[in-house]
Amino acid sequence: MATATEIHASVLHAAKDLRVETRTVSPPAADEVQIHIASTGLCGSDLHYYSHFRNGDILVREPLSLGHESAGIITAVGSSVSSFQPGDKVALEVGLPCEQCQRCKQGRYNICKDVRFRSSGKSFPHFQGTLQERINHPAKWVYKLPEELSLDVGALLEPLGVALHAFRRSLMPENATVVVFGAGAVGLLCAAVAKLRGAGKVVIADIDAGRLDFAVQNGFAHASYTVPMKRGKDIDESLQIAKETAEAVGKVDSAGIYATRPGGRIMLVGMGHPIQTLPLGAAALREVDIVGVFRYANTYQESIDIVLQAQKSSEGPDFSKLITHRFAGFEDAVKAFEMASKTKDADGKLVLKVVIDSSEDGKAIL
Amino acid sequence: MATATEIHASVLHAAKDLRVETRTVSPPAADEVQIHIASTGLCGSDLHYYSHFRNGDILVREPLSLGHESAGIITAVGSSVSSFQPGDKVALEVGLPCEQCQRCKQGRYNICKDVRFRSSGKSFPHFQGTLQERINHPAKWVYKLPEELSLDVGALLEPLGVALHAFRRSLMPENATVVVFGAGAVGLLCAAVAKLRGAGKVVIADIDAGRLDFAVQNGFAHASYTVPMKRGKDIDESLQIAKETAEAVGKVDSAGIYATRPGGRIMLVGMGHPIQTLPLGAAALREVDIVGVFRYANTYQESIDIVLQAQKSSEGPDFSKLITHRFAGFEDAVKAFEMASKTKDADGKLVLKVVIDSSEDGKAIL
Amino acid sequence: MATATEIHASVLHAAKDLRVETRTVSPPAADEVQIHIASTGLCGSDLHYYSHFRNGDILVREPLSLGHESAGIITAVGSSVSSFQPGDKVALEVGLPCEQCQRCKQGRYNICKDVRFRSSGKSFPHFQGTLQERINHPAKWVYKLPEELSLDVGALLEPLGVALHAFRRSLMPENATVVVFGAGAVGLLCAAVAKLRGAGKVVIADIDAGRLDFAVQNGFAHASYTVPMKRGKDIDESLQIAKETAEAVGKVDSAGIYATRPGGRIMLVGMGHPIQTLPLGAAALREVDIVGVFRYANTYQESIDIVLQAQKSSEGPDFSKLITHRFAGFEDAVKAFEMASKTKDADGKLVLKVVIDSSEDGKAIL
Amino acid sequence: MATATEIHASVLHAAKDLRVETRTVSPPAADEVQIHIASTGLCGSDLHYYSHFRNGDILVREPLSLGHESAGIITAVGSSVSSFQPGDKVALEVGLPCEQCQRCKQGRYNICKDVRFRSSGKSFPHFQGTLQERINHPAKWVYKLPEELSLDVGALLEPLGVALHAFRRSLMPENATVVVFGAGAVGLLCAAVAKLRGAGKVVIADIDAGRLDFAVQNGFAHASYTVPMKRGKDIDESLQIAKETAEAVGKVDSAGIYATRPGGRIMLVGMGHPIQTLPLGAAALREVDIVGVFRYANTYQESIDIVLQAQKSSEGPDFSKLITHRFAGFEDAVKAFEMASKTKDADGKLVLKVVIDSSEDGKAIL
Repeated sequence: MATATEIHASVLHAAKDLRVETRTVSPPAADEVQIHIASTGLCGSDLHYYSHFRNGDILVREPLSLGHESAGIITAVGSSVSSFQPGDKVALEVGLPCEQCQRCKQGRYNICKDVRFRSSGKSFPHFQGTLQERINHPAKWVYKLPEELSLDVGALLEPLGVALHAFRRSLMPENATVVVFGAGAVGLLCAAVAKLRGAGKVVIADIDAGRLDFAVQNGFAHASYTVPMKRGKDIDESLQIAKETAEAVGKVDSAGIYATRPGGRIMLVGMGHPIQTLPLGAAALREVDIVGVFRYANTYQESIDIVLQAQKSSEGPDFSKLITHRFAGFEDAVKAFEMASKTKDADGKLVLKVVIDSSEDGKAIL
Repeated sequence: MATATEIHASVLHAAKDLRVETRTVSPPAADEVQIHIASTGLCGSDLHYYSHFRNGDILVREPLSLGHESAGIITAVGSSVSSFQPGDKVALEVGLPCEQCQRCKQGRYNICKDVRFRSSGKSFPHFQGTLQERINHPAKWVYKLPEELSLDVGALLEPLGVALHAFRRSLMPENATVVVFGAGAVGLLCAAVAKLRGAGKVVIADIDAGRLDFAVQNGFAHASYTVPMKRGKDIDESLQIAKETAEAVGKVDSAGIYATRPGGRIMLVGMGHPIQTLPLGAAALREVDIVGVFRYANTYQESIDIVLQAQKSSEGPDFSKLITHRFAGFEDAVKAFEMASKTKDADGKLVLKVVIDSSEDGKAIL
Repeated sequence: MATATEIHASVLHAAKDLRVETRTVSPPAADEVQIHIASTGLCGSDLHYYSHFRNGDILVREPLSLGHESAGIITAVGSSVSSFQPGDKVALEVGLPCEQCQRCKQGRYNICKDVRFRSSGKSFPHFQGTLQERINHPAKWVYKLPEELSLDVGALLEPLGVALHAFRRSLMPENATVVVFGAGAVGLLCAAVAKLRGAGKVVIADIDAGRLDFAVQNGFAHASYTVPMKRGKDIDESLQIAKETAEAVGKVDSAGIYATRPGGRIMLVGMGHPIQTLPLGAAALREVDIVGVFRYANTYQESIDIVLQAQKSSEGPDFSKLITHRFAGFEDAVKAFEMASKTKDADGKLVLKVVIDSSEDGKAIL
Repeated sequence: MATATEIHASVLHAAKDLRVETRTVSPPAADEVQIHIASTGLCGSDLHYYSHFRNGDILVREPLSLGHESAGIITAVGSSVSSFQPGDKVALEVGLPCEQCQRCKQGRYNICKDVRFRSSGKSFPHFQGTLQERINHPAKWVYKLPEELSLDVGALLEPLGVALHAFRRSLMPENATVVVFGAGAVGLLCAAVAKLRGAGKVVIADIDAGRLDFAVQNGFAHASYTVPMKRGKDIDESLQIAKETAEAVGKVDSAGIYATRPGGRIMLVGMGHPIQTLPLGAAALREVDIVGVFRYANTYQESIDIVLQAQKSSEGPDFSKLITHRFAGFEDAVKAFEMASKTKDADGKLVLKVVIDSSEDGKAIL
């Protein structure tokens, strides 16, 4: 008779109060699999929760495991699961839609109003994140990884899904020139998908020349554009300029709209400034659509293809290079979160994606 | 041997300086037809030119005939034209795209950068408008009207094209509720197209209850919503409130974005405020797209179908009721433009679409 | 404590061996509703099962209730159902997809390989049909009917869904002329949807002038075309001609392909001849696509809109006229099936849709 | 004052009667450019004209220059042409649509009924092909080649456009496995486009193992499948089997339909058997669409991107390897056509694409 297992979990109790705790996991239900989580990437929303115990308007109301970009190894399967077996290397899709509403029936389950998403404080009780040694998860939201993909790259399939979903919604037109504003992990992934899917030219823009060099040298984009930052007459003015410039990169500003050709599209990926002032007339009169992207739907299988395509191309990109820092075990989770909050580490190396390796013996990197 | 014909034309020489002049028209070129213009509706851009001798940034630089919503009777055909003959009742599509660029080749000719549009001061020499007794026009941009359509309604096909183009770009989803902000002529046409094409419920909103009554009683919408206008403590405050409220109707304001369901679309039809401040996050995170509409492409044939469909339906709408005021001959053009500037006439009757009838004997209304 | 209820059901035991039996129904599960079935339309596949105890390759392997076009009244709701209450008038969507596969996640659940469909012998144990007094059904596949729709018309939403799905897949082009081959119930519904959704002209074709008169007089199509049937030199030749002509109507024959304009689409609705010989070159070289339709997905809400739109139009069609024959109670099920096998009844009246009314007191017609 | 120039041309006078003649070329009209044709690939339709002085139902009625897959060097530009200058390396799109009909206005100009296509005997007088030293061609249908593309590969953009158009119409679904039947030049190009645009797996099938080896070794496909050819009991039976097998490859046969997953698409590229017998039920009931492809529209710019993408990929394919045989000058045109009729040359080398180099000094290969 099946019994519960004791596991370790990384649990957030208050802002910056992250503890390693012992929890119990029941055997998987009939339609679930049990997964030993091996690799988890940290994302901006994890950092918001970690730093503020909230994310925008969403307050955390009980202890919460963070993490939702994960891959691992199957350790047990439910009685009605035939498509997996223990030992399988898998990635997890961690948003479980209601499967009842019109959006779900139509396949746009990412905008289901009642989706429960691991590590988010939105639904209550909170749907606990993946920074746990083992979790049970519905088999239908789990994807087998091919041999050629490491567990670390398997964890990247989640943010890659955002980029792929943005690409699909962009209806990228013939002979397109694509400009990506922001060379963080998601911006790099957006550029890479456009490039791998045949954009004529992919330009990536940022205020940080180091990130842009990374992008071009590693095949994420064809070219880059450094958003210029003026020098102020004193330190305060310089800081103010930096702040304004940084904000500009996060906005669909005038340049973005004017730069888009008639009939083109502006994709809003991720959380930008919630309120923005736009030259909307210049967009509308040239039929430049402004199109938002929220997470992803039906992306995992195609994301796997994209990674394989990249691995075979001499031009790359090498997605694994996005993972710039790795920390082993939940004990070092605080260090991982602190590192993820920086743009460069103590040695001056870029910080792009930070991963917590919770595999048994460092398997995640393989 | 063909010779030029003397015609009358309504010509704008300066703000509010509209004159009836004599011009000459050559016989039509090989691929053209010559049309006796019978009915021309006045539109907001005509009014801007009439009042200011400019339209936004576009200055008029030589005498200009206005008018671009027109229907008429063929009087002569060019040597290579076989699809028309004198006496045919036709509507004109008055934007001539370059037919060279990628947009044109792809069928999105409305966003061709080099389109020449009658009555606009954008291209130079200006492409003269339709408030002329006869004009030559390429046969390929002329559409035969069925018997059941009057010339007046033929003139309405132009703004109806805008509404149809907006409808097509809306990708109106299953079981849609459509809200149209603004119950002017174009708003009413947008509502009508959505209703005739199967929207579950079409609600039209305006600050003017009279327009809303018109909309619902004549079958343009299922229901209406009066945007409330607060009363100020004195006349100045009241005027200020009225101004702010009126502006609100022309904007994609917060309500518009929040009211749209996840995955829905906000269509920007016509010239709104060029710069707007929006809760863009609330749009993007629910994949509410913001989609502009500029004029129309490939709409005339389907617009004719739409009018026929409406004429056969007990629910209407009766498009001809949109034409609230008619003026015969170019001599009364000034009166027509002055009327079109108002929202109600001296008798308190709504002013929606004002038409100048330049037919030989009042044929346009038939 | 909830207990099972005894109900009557119409059960097929062998070809033409239809019996009224007593079954028991448990209380609804948490996510189910219990429905008193009031109206069930008979369809071609029901007839095949009734006559042959099989449908094509699909053999019936245990006693089977037929019926899948149904509406009824909610009698009980499961513990987690909040959107329905007893007394609600509803229609049922009777194909339950697996909700696990890629097709399901993408919203194309009609082509899920593991869909279980009531009254079909494909899955085993067979998923019993709706010719039962009460059934439990998942609340997510049940749709509330507005007051204006009778239960009979609610039952029609199922075949109307096929027509709507065909319409959606047709991507009906601008200013379309639509030709529907076959004026049976599904053909009439296809014509009606195209007409209500704005086709320029809908022509329906059949060998039976009576059906065509019905179609045009009741607003299902704009015009009709009688496929000519030659007279043979004796009775055998006449029968042979009739057979060949009848077959022709069921085929995408040369005429169908040649009649479609370049870039148009041929929709294959329902079960035609499984093997056909086609002038495929004439289709391919003019980009005439050949597009199949299997059942429907995400149609019920929009089908309700379509019926409401038709009820408000002076042009119709009046969908309720499709229901030409009604039989009350399961005792008369055999009579209903026999009638449904005919094209005309003893009085010479057309047989289109035959309905079995299993409501408590003839409510279904209201 | 501009005068006509004497040029050489390859002209077909009867089946296999190909002559080098002198013609005159006027200076280009205002909207034309004059092009020295440098490289022309031979295609199946050229071969039909060469061998039979007809192509299917289309008879040649006057001496005809063949050739329509061409690139060359601009030698003169018309008075209103600003986008080109002498010396520019260009590819030609040789189908000139009517630009009047609904299809043209919508951007689907490839299915314009009145398109005039160089080297085709359909319109009369025939629109002469590109096997001429110089021709005048409308500037709007000419595309500048980037430095990295040779003139030979520029000539390949024409058949590549067919493959790209097929790809676009395929709406290639997520995580697709693509099977291409036939490993001739167009089949190889179809496979390459699918592979470069992200298909999960591209399998190419043919009866000729040599072609399949070529496909996989040169990066046109991931894998191949040799259609087995049985050995007969004597030479006649073997020939008959070979013929039947060869025909099978050209057909959308049962295997093709059954192999396609639900919701997939079968693309018909090029001229197959005009009349085919199909298991249409098996297609329709699984919503497997049968979609034809006729030439291409709006493909040249994106085809250039595709070639550049391939040139940068370690996986290829190297499109220039498709050009297996080259003949310099029109004097050797007969040899070129004879070679193009074979599947292997005298040395046993595959014959895929045969090019006639009419450049001044062998520039085409650069």
